[in-house]
Amino acid sequence: MTEGARRRSRGGGGAARRAERTAVSVETARYIERNIPNFDILSEEALEIIETNAETILAEIGVNFVNNPGALDRWRNAGADIDGERVRIPRGLARKLCETAPATFTQHARNPARNVEMGGRNLVLAPVYGPPFVRDANGRRYATIDDFRNFVKLGYMSKWLHHSGGTLCEPTDVPVSKRHIDMLHAHMTLSDKPFMGSVTDPARAQDSVDMCKVLFGEEFVQANTVMTSLININSPLTFDDVMMGALEVYCANNQACIISPFIVGGAMAPVSVAGTLTQVYAEVLAGIAYSQLVRPGAPVIFGAFVTSIDMNSGAPTFGTPEASQILYGAGQLARRLGLPFRSGGALCGSKLPDAQAGIESANTLNAALLGGVNFMLHACGWLEGGLVASFEKFVIDADQLGVLHRMASGIALGEDDQAMDAIREVGPGGHFLGCAHTQANFKNAFWRTDLLDYKPFETWHEEGARDTVSLATRRVETLLATYQQPPMDPATVDALEAYVVRRKEELPDTFF
Amino acid sequence: MTEGARRRSRGGGGAARRAERTAVSVETARYIERNIPNFDILSEEALEIIETNAETILAEIGVNFVNNPGALDRWRNAGADIDGERVRIPRGLARKLCETAPATFTQHARNPARNVEMGGRNLVLAPVYGPPFVRDANGRRYATIDDFRNFVKLGYMSKWLHHSGGTLCEPTDVPVSKRHIDMLHAHMTLSDKPFMGSVTDPARAQDSVDMCKVLFGEEFVQANTVMTSLININSPLTFDDVMMGALEVYCANNQACIISPFIVGGAMAPVSVAGTLTQVYAEVLAGIAYSQLVRPGAPVIFGAFVTSIDMNSGAPTFGTPEASQILYGAGQLARRLGLPFRSGGALCGSKLPDAQAGIESANTLNAALLGGVNFMLHACGWLEGGLVASFEKFVIDADQLGVLHRMASGIALGEDDQAMDAIREVGPGGHFLGCAHTQANFKNAFWRTDLLDYKPFETWHEEGARDTVSLATRRVETLLATYQQPPMDPATVDALEAYVVRRKEELPDTFF
Repeated sequence: MTEGARRRSRGGGGAARRAERTAVSVETARYIERNIPNFDILSEEALEIIETNAETILAEIGVNFVNNPGALDRWRNAGADIDGERVRIPRGLARKLCETAPATFTQHARNPARNVEMGGRNLVLAPVYGPPFVRDANGRRYATIDDFRNFVKLGYMSKWLHHSGGTLCEPTDVPVSKRHIDMLHAHMTLSDKPFMGSVTDPARAQDSVDMCKVLFGEEFVQANTVMTSLININSPLTFDDVMMGALEVYCANNQACIISPFIVGGAMAPVSVAGTLTQVYAEVLAGIAYSQLVRPGAPVIFGAFVTSIDMNSGAPTFGTPEASQILYGAGQLARRLGLPFRSGGALCGSKLPDAQAGIESANTLNAALLGGVNFMLHACGWLEGGLVASFEKFVIDADQLGVLHRMASGIALGEDDQAMDAIREVGPGGHFLGCAHTQANFKNAFWRTDLLDYKPFETWHEEGARDTVSLATRRVETLLATYQQPPMDPATVDALEAYVVRRKEELPDTFF
Repeated sequence: MTEGARRRSRGGGGAARRAERTAVSVETARYIERNIPNFDILSEEALEIIETNAETILAEIGVNFVNNPGALDRWRNAGADIDGERVRIPRGLARKLCETAPATFTQHARNPARNVEMGGRNLVLAPVYGPPFVRDANGRRYATIDDFRNFVKLGYMSKWLHHSGGTLCEPTDVPVSKRHIDMLHAHMTLSDKPFMGSVTDPARAQDSVDMCKVLFGEEFVQANTVMTSLININSPLTFDDVMMGALEVYCANNQACIISPFIVGGAMAPVSVAGTLTQVYAEVLAGIAYSQLVRPGAPVIFGAFVTSIDMNSGAPTFGTPEASQILYGAGQLARRLGLPFRSGGALCGSKLPDAQAGIESANTLNAALLGGVNFMLHACGWLEGGLVASFEKFVIDADQLGVLHRMASGIALGEDDQAMDAIREVGPGGHFLGCAHTQANFKNAFWRTDLLDYKPFETWHEEGARDTVSLATRRVETLLATYQQPPMDPATVDALEAYVVRRKEELPDTFF
């Protein structure tokens, strides 16, 4: 029996009573609808140079579709020049093919109140994806399925997180061949937010679709997008058969894909911002064009996960100015194509949730907000260049996602916001703490942290002089202790459980 | 004998030999000239609402000039309505008076290579100002003049810091009546970057001017701006005689003033962003108009040091979305008046240089860069809401100021930056580490940290698993150990020393 089903059986009246006792909120904010402009770092002239160069790359250098004769056939039929596995795409063709991709799409959650709208002025926030390790108050270790489930629970309880994400960490205690089943089951049962499907094998993508049919019903899945999954391009300019196989499954089933170069600039792209942006644009153009060859109208997201290399150590870096510049530029290119844009996250290279982690993450979150990101993976919990999912950093970042919500709402200028009555009432030399306007507005006037410390030094010192990590450890404990599973129809619980048991029996145990 | 003079006497050949042995650079970057757009959060319509309301405040509510009959006379002569100490300024008058203030001005340093240009698209970075406490690896304690001198040295050695600042910390072991003499002497002798004058009493402002006459020569000071000093408005809407007295001294001597509301929103301004912006604009309009009544053409900076209150504890908060929104809006208002703009800094409320400090500081630095700040006080070293100057945070922040330089330079799009040759050379599936373009460009392609850790986990762990604070402690030690005083004409050294000795004998010892 999986944890999801086991937990549910302990629910009912006891759960309802526990709900009354606890003050921890499971409220989830609606996805962000920006009421502020984007920051456009590139001029129209600069965008044209990059676009012309990207078209030159596609037409003259081309891209490789590896081990994928079907893809080569599709490209040949569309008018591309095929030479072995090399696909050269005539100028304008890729952009033309991209036109059938929708500008916005809805990803449905099992709780319709949690549906998210990808694209436009919106920003949807999802947690960290992919780390093989976790870090908590006891240190760093390989991640397990229990860790994974705890991250799903934290995500469910994080007010400012709209999406449950995908591979929150690699459950290394479960065979690779079966992990996707357990991960999807956790997202489906321990949260009611939208989630991502498996991409590590086309058959696992099909499992993801089939499990969604159990959860949502077959007709609903054929008619609606219920997953957004992460298809990485093998930069430079290479589309491998595993990722493309998963893409083909998702596109055929009308499920959304993020088509995303994963670039460490200087290694997988040129050691310049403009050159990297050009390569990103060429790769995404080719990838999205291919998605539309598989199924015109398939929902896709223009992805750009790009950082730069530390030329001393060869390590990837995060929160650097070049990474921000590329994010801003890529956002403009995505808007040029009229497509939803994925980038950003609380990215950092630090090994610990320390000042470096805070700085690097904040640099990236700020760029992502102003750079027009529509879907932000890694919005919380990312540590050590993505090798580690950190429990403490998850709640530290998740708190800052509230800052993004408030920033994006812009500056209200209604009569009450103008506060002229307050300024008249208080006058020169007074204070506003007790005035009528303050009394009426103070509760919701300013963003409030659920975590950070503003206490006077003396109080803070008496309480143990706790740093951010200590405060975060306490918050993780509180959240997990008060977690309550969202309700689910018992027949669906049983059907999902049956799917899990059957598939895990069918699949071999492999750890590679 | 002061430390500056004592150190110098140990210089000469030994200093030159030490210079050859050390790898620590004392290079200083030129102030930032932005090559990126500003982020404008407010529409023209919103700016007009705020301006109309600010004019209403000045005309109908008015501002108080306290204990300052001369100011009331100036206002009366200019056409304002005077009622006791209340000054009501007819619509349009304050803005009209502001027109004589220069859009840009040069602040001269004793080393002309360190001169800074305030206003326009420029950004000048200066360190923390005002804390009574310091924090280092040994904890938190009252600041001393030795701490002050060490901060001057760190500022001098910080490549990305253009300005030596003012009251880097309060030297609490020196009588209040004499502190300004020791602080100015330290800035003048231990650094060659531009600095700020004293504002805590008009006589101390005059001392600052007189010491500058010794340093630069009397004629030079009358003809040029050699100090930029911080005049805080007593919000709401109050101009006290101490600050205005200092302003009058500086304006009369053609020295620059930042005229800056210091507002904790919800306490000294309404509990709304729009209301706070309106009050800021009214206050700065009145203050700058007054500076131009004292001396038309006097160089001034539109200041906005605004944060919001934590409605739970009453403490000021930093790095919040409301603070960023106000910064962005105030920048637009400053540009509307065509004046240099001061705001931002590495501001935080945290007690320690931890993740909270990193996040809050980065949030503010990012807003200040994109919000068009021209002079950024508190750009490094600020901790605990400004109560503490932190040695570790000084070098952590100073490192991030390099990020601002690189971000502000924009995305280069020359032929070599486009890197098409590199993409052709490498092709699909290759890597860029060894290609010709990378070899030619890797040294300066990306911003490089002097502090943060990018090492692989295993190396980092073997080296002691150091967090950012530990790395910073080591950097502070290295910088201070390798500091070398910039050269100064011996006659000037002696003349400054004589001024210091004479004035410190003349002034009484008071600690309040």
